[in-house]
Amino acid sequence: MLHKIGLEEHFAIPETLGCSEKYFPKEVWPKFSKHILDLMEIRINQMDENGMEMMILSLNSPAIQAIYDRKEAVEVAKKANDIMAEAIAKNPKRFRGFAALPMQDPDAAIMELHRSVKELGCVGVLVNGYSQIDSQDEYKYLDDPIYRPFWAEVEKLDVPFYMHPREPMPCNSKMLAGHPWLDGAAWSFGVETATHTLRLMCSGIFDEFPNLKYILGHLGETLPFCIWRTANRIRKENRGIPAKRALPEYMEQNMWLTTSGQFRTAALWNTIMEFGADRILFATDFPFEEVKDACVWFDNCSISENDRVKIGRDNIIKLFNLT
Amino acid sequence: MLHKIGLEEHFAIPETLGCSEKYFPKEVWPKFSKHILDLMEIRINQMDENGMEMMILSLNSPAIQAIYDRKEAVEVAKKANDIMAEAIAKNPKRFRGFAALPMQDPDAAIMELHRSVKELGCVGVLVNGYSQIDSQDEYKYLDDPIYRPFWAEVEKLDVPFYMHPREPMPCNSKMLAGHPWLDGAAWSFGVETATHTLRLMCSGIFDEFPNLKYILGHLGETLPFCIWRTANRIRKENRGIPAKRALPEYMEQNMWLTTSGQFRTAALWNTIMEFGADRILFATDFPFEEVKDACVWFDNCSISENDRVKIGRDNIIKLFNLT
Amino acid sequence: MLHKIGLEEHFAIPETLGCSEKYFPKEVWPKFSKHILDLMEIRINQMDENGMEMMILSLNSPAIQAIYDRKEAVEVAKKANDIMAEAIAKNPKRFRGFAALPMQDPDAAIMELHRSVKELGCVGVLVNGYSQIDSQDEYKYLDDPIYRPFWAEVEKLDVPFYMHPREPMPCNSKMLAGHPWLDGAAWSFGVETATHTLRLMCSGIFDEFPNLKYILGHLGETLPFCIWRTANRIRKENRGIPAKRALPEYMEQNMWLTTSGQFRTAALWNTIMEFGADRILFATDFPFEEVKDACVWFDNCSISENDRVKIGRDNIIKLFNLT
Amino acid sequence: MLHKIGLEEHFAIPETLGCSEKYFPKEVWPKFSKHILDLMEIRINQMDENGMEMMILSLNSPAIQAIYDRKEAVEVAKKANDIMAEAIAKNPKRFRGFAALPMQDPDAAIMELHRSVKELGCVGVLVNGYSQIDSQDEYKYLDDPIYRPFWAEVEKLDVPFYMHPREPMPCNSKMLAGHPWLDGAAWSFGVETATHTLRLMCSGIFDEFPNLKYILGHLGETLPFCIWRTANRIRKENRGIPAKRALPEYMEQNMWLTTSGQFRTAALWNTIMEFGADRILFATDFPFEEVKDACVWFDNCSISENDRVKIGRDNIIKLFNLT
Ligand SMILES: [Zn+2]
Ligand SMILES: [Zn+2]
Ligand SMILES: [Zn+2]
Ligand SMILES: [Zn+2]
Repeated sequence: MLHKIGLEEHFAIPETLGCSEKYFPKEVWPKFSKHILDLMEIRINQMDENGMEMMILSLNSPAIQAIYDRKEAVEVAKKANDIMAEAIAKNPKRFRGFAALPMQDPDAAIMELHRSVKELGCVGVLVNGYSQIDSQDEYKYLDDPIYRPFWAEVEKLDVPFYMHPREPMPCNSKMLAGHPWLDGAAWSFGVETATHTLRLMCSGIFDEFPNLKYILGHLGETLPFCIWRTANRIRKENRGIPAKRALPEYMEQNMWLTTSGQFRTAALWNTIMEFGADRILFATDFPFEEVKDACVWFDNCSISENDRVKIGRDNIIKLFNLT
Repeated sequence: MLHKIGLEEHFAIPETLGCSEKYFPKEVWPKFSKHILDLMEIRINQMDENGMEMMILSLNSPAIQAIYDRKEAVEVAKKANDIMAEAIAKNPKRFRGFAALPMQDPDAAIMELHRSVKELGCVGVLVNGYSQIDSQDEYKYLDDPIYRPFWAEVEKLDVPFYMHPREPMPCNSKMLAGHPWLDGAAWSFGVETATHTLRLMCSGIFDEFPNLKYILGHLGETLPFCIWRTANRIRKENRGIPAKRALPEYMEQNMWLTTSGQFRTAALWNTIMEFGADRILFATDFPFEEVKDACVWFDNCSISENDRVKIGRDNIIKLFNLT
Repeated sequence: MLHKIGLEEHFAIPETLGCSEKYFPKEVWPKFSKHILDLMEIRINQMDENGMEMMILSLNSPAIQAIYDRKEAVEVAKKANDIMAEAIAKNPKRFRGFAALPMQDPDAAIMELHRSVKELGCVGVLVNGYSQIDSQDEYKYLDDPIYRPFWAEVEKLDVPFYMHPREPMPCNSKMLAGHPWLDGAAWSFGVETATHTLRLMCSGIFDEFPNLKYILGHLGETLPFCIWRTANRIRKENRGIPAKRALPEYMEQNMWLTTSGQFRTAALWNTIMEFGADRILFATDFPFEEVKDACVWFDNCSISENDRVKIGRDNIIKLFNLT
Repeated sequence: MLHKIGLEEHFAIPETLGCSEKYFPKEVWPKFSKHILDLMEIRINQMDENGMEMMILSLNSPAIQAIYDRKEAVEVAKKANDIMAEAIAKNPKRFRGFAALPMQDPDAAIMELHRSVKELGCVGVLVNGYSQIDSQDEYKYLDDPIYRPFWAEVEKLDVPFYMHPREPMPCNSKMLAGHPWLDGAAWSFGVETATHTLRLMCSGIFDEFPNLKYILGHLGETLPFCIWRTANRIRKENRGIPAKRALPEYMEQNMWLTTSGQFRTAALWNTIMEFGADRILFATDFPFEEVKDACVWFDNCSISENDRVKIGRDNIIKLFNLT
């Protein structure tokens, strides 16, 4: 279809480029790094060739979340947001953006959130999972009490929050010892991000801020497949969980799921069967995935044309109030 | 439907009963412990009431896998297998069994495997994930080279291997800190067991032993939903993975997936869409799940009557050569 | 779910009661005739017991469409609409109505359409297929040129049109000779109504009146399953078909499909896969089907809770502008 | 996939070629007529290019069924079967065949059935619906009592019977008056063939001959979508139907459904959800459909690789005992 809008479309700035290097074979890296840095011709050409009207841009991963020095995190986030805003200003019909935020410093994160939305025109915020704080080895998940004011502000500003994957802390990924091919997008991204999302749901965040709009990539990081079982077990042994409602209700009412990197029709159908097509949004995960691969699959997968238009465009316009 | 056969139907012996206590609210524990110890009336009554002809029994989890003392592990495994064999002998039309094995001692495991299959008539083997060895803190996954002779023997005996969940090592579950409601079947079982299975596939086990028959519970522990993405990423950056084929091929050709604890039609359809109904087997996860809940769901879920008979019975008879 | 709204909920008046008698075994008729005549307690009790907030009422079939005398048709239609309006006035929160129209006389049909919508408050119009005109043996389908002004008026008033089944003319049902069990809802209703709908699409009605809102019962009378094939054949040999677009586009953009009498999850999924959940509306086909059968199925079928609310209520409120 | 076997793959002989002319625009006819007459290079080239190992051939439609002169019907059937047998003998690894039968003369039909299977090596029989007998206007459906000995013989020989579409008798297709674009494969084929199949099921044929193997093309001619409703209505008002069982049971146990001309994934899923993948067989409907269209769709549609191999090949080998 034409006029698709993509929701997980990354760029990098020189300060964050290195984060992505490990995910690419050496021979591919020069081409990749050129693609991810580009916010002009290369990207727009690919969009034109594949029927994408707009990308809602976001910084690569983990980027800011891995800069444990608070001050540096704040500065790099600002710089990234400024560069992104500039690119959007040059092509306002083709780009919008998610703010990157220095979650190491919750107050600064709130300030940068404000600045990004109110001054730079960001339409949402994307955070790459937990953030390291003050040292390489300290980290906090977003269900930590220090983030309650942040969530309050996200709800108040009424902008969608995108929970993007990053790799687990080394201390949390020993299960994969000896199997580096399972690092990152192949496997550990999904475990980390689904777990983080479960922590948030269980912590009662969505009871406290019932209007949060929360986006997950990769068709929900396996949660559409297994959330029934998780909820079924918790119903039987709740062990004092703070969440007031059954977990699937938060997914039904607060979450949207994108197709980034999950170009698979069976998984898409599982997701539609659990949450309905209104909750699904198109995304490519460029440049970690090819725009073309995402688009050829999406344009031809066995869903109704009505749902294709909704997932590929209309749901996104509605969720982000794009005009 | 009548004459269903169940594939993940646990019992305990006094030595392993304690393993399951933590999963139950105190007020439920007396009833539960009575159910899991019973290998006679209670169980058969429940089967009769719900159209189950046969249970293929297995010990609870982690049981043997958590007995780090090798000698004790060998003894308790033998005792459990003997008790199970006795129960089967009393009701040979209603019970068959999976052997429990002391994987702490690979040679002893092979010997007990032989004894269980050849002398006791076990139709398969069920292992609860990794095993602790010699101390609480040492453990090995089954892709470890010390287990190659074991896999060779399983293939040679041509009996199905059931990879049953257990909780991650404490050092592997810090991601859930502060969220005990996500322990066990609610979440960490699935992560642990899917990861273990991926380790096995990636290690080349199924290239070396191409006739292994490998069973996963819980509709594949999320792998039907996400294996395409894992394979897609590995195809792009293989990082020297030993596996010779794409991971989904092992699932198509070496694996069977049971419905234990995943009484959810959308997930069942995802699994059928990825691997076909021939690869799906009925199971309840009794007594952690109610026989009735499993059966009412399965008897009424929206699949063809032809597939219901296959999943509920015929596939199992064929896979296990039951007569 | 609570607060369901039903879209194909029939009543009869003494003048039309006889039309339905043939569909019922003698022993059931007294109870049935009581149910279909009732527009008060019996009906509301059934709704209350099954979570239905509202029925959008319609006369039984073929009723007016089989009264070949124009004048009589006009009178009976008026009487039926008046009786219905009275019932709605007594329970405005529980009932709305589709107008019955004397299509034998296109001008009178337009006048009654106006009166029903503007004076009686009808929210749509329901016609039982072709109408016999002037004699038992003359009949016209609604793609006949004499009905173009009628369609223009329906579009202008912006009220949904429900194409309800009736049996084929005797001269059109000889294929079933000797097989009376295939008459009516069992088989010939569907063939007749799907064919009539295809005639309308092929005739270019939806090109001329692109804002028509057209409703089909019984999940689209098999069209979701086979419209691709019909369109594929017409694309290859169009033989001068007047329709300007591919037939599925009319279904995507002009049609809504109800669950009346088709309480089957696989067919519902086929319909969602072809047209999306926004196009599907709840209906029971009471009293030809039991309210309870329709509701128990719908409340439990394997769709997302989000879609259940849309299909069961929200889509209908939106389509009919109910307030 | 490679090595696909096709089940509805037509040829013509000069005597039957004219039957197909009306379905093609004039400019396409020369190419089409060359294709349908060819039983050598053209066909095998197309198979090679699209991964088809074998075609099970059948005569075009209506062919023999429309030759109302009994003697001529017998002769043309014999000739067609002989020509087909010769082509098979030249390429036994690429072709097998369905016998064409002169159903106008039930005794002769049985004799030709015997000769075809026993002497010519036909693996099944394909009949194009009802047959005209003795005059243009007389016709009999296959539930007529005169065909009981024929069905007995089919069951005894244990060869599958393929019910192929033909157009309704003119007296049975007045519903389409003025809409020639709905004739044939676009619409009336399906109505006719589904109705004929319902007649057979209702008549009790499958009770009398419970081992009949009955094949329907076009994914079951809409029956997978609507048979639940038909059965539901008959359960409520059976009106003395001879069939002893619910109609879906005959479909589950006696029928197989092919993909001919229905290259649509949503309809395929509906069919799998109702009858399971074991009951589905690959077919193209060549040369009315392109081999390439059928194969590109089938090779890429969203089903499991395991089911693809079954539907595309293994189910067919099993059903026809191909070696
Ligand atoms: Zn990404
Ligand atoms: Zn278990
Ligand atoms: Zn009705
Ligand atoms: Zn054909």
